[in-house]
Amino acid sequence: MDTKVNLAEKLSRLDAPFQPGIVGTLNDYKLAVVKVHGEFVWHKHDDTDDFFLVLSGHLTIQLRDRDVELSPGELFVVPRGVEHRPVADEEAHVLLIERRGTPNTGDYTTAAPRRIV
Amino acid sequence: MDTKVNLAEKLSRLDAPFQPGIVGTLNDYKLAVVKVHGEFVWHKHDDTDDFFLVLSGHLTIQLRDRDVELSPGELFVVPRGVEHRPVADEEAHVLLIERRGTPNTGDYTTAAPRRIV
Repeated sequence: MDTKVNLAEKLSRLDAPFQPGIVGTLNDYKLAVVKVHGEFVWHKHDDTDDFFLVLSGHLTIQLRDRDVELSPGELFVVPRGVEHRPVADEEAHVLLIERRGTPNTGDYTTAAPRRIV
Repeated sequence: MDTKVNLAEKLSRLDAPFQPGIVGTLNDYKLAVVKVHGEFVWHKHDDTDDFFLVLSGHLTIQLRDRDVELSPGELFVVPRGVEHRPVADEEAHVLLIERRGTPNTGDYTTAAPRRIV
C-alpha cells in the first residue's frame, strides 16, 4: 500500500454485511473494513486478539457475560480465546485489524472469502 | 484491556503534541493516540511499518519524495524503512498502531516516554 486509504470510500464498495474488504496491511496484519448489520455468528480466535473500531453507526459486541456497546470513535479489543458475536440493529461501519490468515468466523470452513477492496 | 476505549476521551487526557498515550494493545502491538501540532522529526523504523489514522483535523505525512495529506477517516501506512515526518499546521488527532517497543522517533534515545492514558 503506497497510497492513503479513505475508509468511507472503501466501505462504499462493499455490498453485503459481514463481508470484510481488505484495505491495507501493517506488517503481517490485515486492515479491513466491514459493514455489520444483523447478527454475526458466535466465534473466537484462539491465537489472536480481535480489534474493532466503529467508524459509523452503533455496534454491540456480545460477550458471554456482557455486551460492549460501541459508538463512532470507540474501539474494543476482544482478547484471544474469548467468544464474541458482533451485532448491529442498523448498519454499522467498522475497521478491523487482524493477523493475516485469521478467518473472520474463527473457522476456515465458514469464513468469508479474502477480498481486497 | 477489558473495557471499550473512547478515543476522544483518551485524547482529552493529553497535553502536549507528539506525546503518544497508549490506550490498549492488540497482541504485541500497542494502540496509541497522539496530538500532532507543528512538525515532528524526520525518522524511520527499519523493522516495522507505521500506521496513522486521522480522527480529527488534517495531517500531512511528509515523505522524501511527496506529501500524503490525510483528513478524518483516512489512514496511511508508512512502509518500514521509509523516512517520514508528520506535520500539522493546526492540531490533529491521530490513532497510531505500532509494534510494542517501537520508539516514536525511530530512536530510543530521543523517543517520547511510554505512557498509558
